[in-house]
Amino acid sequence: MNHFHPVALDHASRLVNHGPTVLVSAAHQGRRNIMAAAWSMPVEFGPPRIAVVIDKSTYTRELITASGAFAIIVPGAALIDLTYTVGSCTGRDDDKFARYGIDAGSGPELGMPVLEQGCSAWLECRWIPEARSEEAYDTFFGEVVAAAADRRIFSDGHWHFTPENRALHTLHHLGAGKFVIASDQTQARELPRR
Amino acid sequence: MNHFHPVALDHASRLVNHGPTVLVSAAHQGRRNIMAAAWSMPVEFGPPRIAVVIDKSTYTRELITASGAFAIIVPGAALIDLTYTVGSCTGRDDDKFARYGIDAGSGPELGMPVLEQGCSAWLECRWIPEARSEEAYDTFFGEVVAAAADRRIFSDGHWHFTPENRALHTLHHLGAGKFVIASDQTQARELPRR
Repeated sequence: MNHFHPVALDHASRLVNHGPTVLVSAAHQGRRNIMAAAWSMPVEFGPPRIAVVIDKSTYTRELITASGAFAIIVPGAALIDLTYTVGSCTGRDDDKFARYGIDAGSGPELGMPVLEQGCSAWLECRWIPEARSEEAYDTFFGEVVAAAADRRIFSDGHWHFTPENRALHTLHHLGAGKFVIASDQTQARELPRR
Repeated sequence: MNHFHPVALDHASRLVNHGPTVLVSAAHQGRRNIMAAAWSMPVEFGPPRIAVVIDKSTYTRELITASGAFAIIVPGAALIDLTYTVGSCTGRDDDKFARYGIDAGSGPELGMPVLEQGCSAWLECRWIPEARSEEAYDTFFGEVVAAAADRRIFSDGHWHFTPENRALHTLHHLGAGKFVIASDQTQARELPRR
């Protein structure tokens, strides 16, 4: 059973607010690819915009600049090996989705590849070309035009990390295939002045 | 006892690779401030460079552009309330460090305020002015010129999250004062081709 449901655009930035390692996908004229990216962040809530670092050498970058779009996918903890694997190889020579049996759907607005099985959320983004930051810092900006999340961990515009939905908890890459997993959701309180 | 030790610059980006919520500090001519930022990411390993979103309304932004420098501090889980609190108020009217009893040191290269007690790491950064991304996306770039970490959780260039050092585990802000905490460090493995 699929538990994905649409997320209102003014809540979309919350899906990546806490710095998860994400998958980035793109497609153009029948070719498609997917990679891992530890380096992404929201830059605005309304309109929802995000920044993501995409190295010049990547096939995904070619597809983004050709199609003008990409998707950000938030993998759950159970996809740790898949996340690492698609981040460790190129899709230039053959289709990574077929190579690793990845079942991808198609985003509703831009047709970008999106994953739901084992993932907590996805965001379909329109590329905002910014030559200077792309060239100097490999930093791409995009505006979110559609988003969805698994209601078992994100509903009514909020995350709900619990022991029961641990397979959907987000991954955070430390480097060299070592990840930490986010859990123990806690409400902070404001300190009194001294 | 203070367990901080210098981190080699080519390992500095690893300190924020996994998307922790950080504190951003700056100082200029006797004035100083500290705020929380969920939105930051590395953009390069060598030289180590990072991007961080700093809203136009913030006092910290005034101090960064006046001094040409800032520091990124990685708070541990035990500082959840302090992180939330300094992210929820302005330092324009009085000194936040004094207001909340924050014991700040001074970075070795640029004199930026750095915290060690309860934190896992800090990075002192030289601002790289980029008018377009600052104006359009509030996105500031900086080059790390000094870094240090608590050796109980980061040593020999690598993170080591264990149950014993849980108070130093990183915070990841979901929104509205709700945080998740990174733990369960796990080594991923590469999947075989189908």
